[in-house]
Amino acid sequence: MTRQELIQQIKQKRSFLCVGLDTDPKKMPQCVFDLHDPIFEFNKAIIDATAPYCVAYKPNLAFYEAYGIKGMEAFVKTCEYIKENHPNHLIIADAKRGDIGNTSQMYARTFFEEYNIDALTVAPYMGEDSVTPFLQYEGKWVILLALTSNKGSHDFQLTEDAQGERLFEKVLKKSQEWGNTNNMMYVVGATQGKMFEDIRKLAPDHFLLVPGVGAQGGSLQEVCKYGMNKDCGLLVNSSRGIIYASNDDHFAEVAGNKARELQQEMDEELTKAGL
Amino acid sequence: MTRQELIQQIKQKRSFLCVGLDTDPKKMPQCVFDLHDPIFEFNKAIIDATAPYCVAYKPNLAFYEAYGIKGMEAFVKTCEYIKENHPNHLIIADAKRGDIGNTSQMYARTFFEEYNIDALTVAPYMGEDSVTPFLQYEGKWVILLALTSNKGSHDFQLTEDAQGERLFEKVLKKSQEWGNTNNMMYVVGATQGKMFEDIRKLAPDHFLLVPGVGAQGGSLQEVCKYGMNKDCGLLVNSSRGIIYASNDDHFAEVAGNKARELQQEMDEELTKAGL
Repeated sequence: MTRQELIQQIKQKRSFLCVGLDTDPKKMPQCVFDLHDPIFEFNKAIIDATAPYCVAYKPNLAFYEAYGIKGMEAFVKTCEYIKENHPNHLIIADAKRGDIGNTSQMYARTFFEEYNIDALTVAPYMGEDSVTPFLQYEGKWVILLALTSNKGSHDFQLTEDAQGERLFEKVLKKSQEWGNTNNMMYVVGATQGKMFEDIRKLAPDHFLLVPGVGAQGGSLQEVCKYGMNKDCGLLVNSSRGIIYASNDDHFAEVAGNKARELQQEMDEELTKAGL
Repeated sequence: MTRQELIQQIKQKRSFLCVGLDTDPKKMPQCVFDLHDPIFEFNKAIIDATAPYCVAYKPNLAFYEAYGIKGMEAFVKTCEYIKENHPNHLIIADAKRGDIGNTSQMYARTFFEEYNIDALTVAPYMGEDSVTPFLQYEGKWVILLALTSNKGSHDFQLTEDAQGERLFEKVLKKSQEWGNTNNMMYVVGATQGKMFEDIRKLAPDHFLLVPGVGAQGGSLQEVCKYGMNKDCGLLVNSSRGIIYASNDDHFAEVAGNKARELQQEMDEELTKAGL
């Protein structure tokens, strides 16, 4: 999916919501366990209920890998289901990969060829040759970790160099030598609040993938205030707050309602920004 | 596997070799393709030929994931084969995972429960809560990226803070608040040469996993000179230099010879160090 197609989807749907598919059998309602492939069936129901209100889905690989081969089968089926039934939705594999060049090439092949997903989260610690192999695919996206939503983000990401430049800022600057606004986004946690201003100084035009609204305590309004740009430039993710909003037979309907509530808030924010 | 058990294996075998199973069908000899599961059969032959000369195996997840479900089945079968037939070998999953706390918990479950491997490489960028979930398993190891073997390692890992401390040094120091010499090792690339002296100032007793000897150009002698400690403290990995040493029907025998050559060099280094 190109940048222009993504912007068009956001404007049509009045939403920049990404639904995080952190699918955990321990939190799924009892009713799906009667079906053949519970993880996939749960996702399918969530996807069909939320699709009108979001522009992206983000399966978190950890949750699928934790169930071994069966989990990975559910991941593959989920991606195929989205491609077939909701082809205008961006599929982001949240996998935080990154390794030496020849290994990153293999990961790129996995996600962009074998699974044919649209975007992949990548960790920057190993530098240029760990990231660039993912940038060789037309219409695919690298989403590089910049300033994450978790407490541990303070351990290294805020480290200042002798010139006062923080590590996440160095990642933002350096990585723009490798990719551009058409093939690279950044992960910035919703919990970082006003720090979005600093991010926008260095990456005014890039899309940002923003986890941490909801369960992790980030505020949508604050993210929009400091992070939105002239093309919106945001994909705000909610996982647990949507997919586990209810644990009974009506879980999908309730998830759809939660997604619609967020979509309505996003519509307001887009209007405020004149979009 | 405990630290004491690992040290004992090294002393018994006079080897601190880790064989990297970066298994790539494009580089495998023709003869294995007549068998039912070529990736697994290739690994099985390599493992049986090299087991007397090494103390660890390191399957690189990227190579298995690249072949989807079938690739992951081959990975699982490979780990099971090592556990059953060579139970004193450490199995390191080279996966470079790391995510927010609840997601890292899922990854830890995958590798340490579902696959029951002994050690996992982890990326430090997201800080404490991305690493500590992996440290909750008795007898299992986190191998944290410190100073990697690739060219891109210079992009961020060498960044100095205002006090002159480099990022990899901060990772070494900070992470010792989370783990200890019994559950944590560090990745340090063989290509880093004299930098091992700086690593040993901050982590004198930890084991180091050292990739980059062979195809990437690192020198075993230099690594030992600057990196070996009183317990050896090194696991030196070779992947391509061993497993693709020959591409004909005798590939396993040639791989075994290559592993034995390295073991003999390691024996000399251990003797030099009085071990």
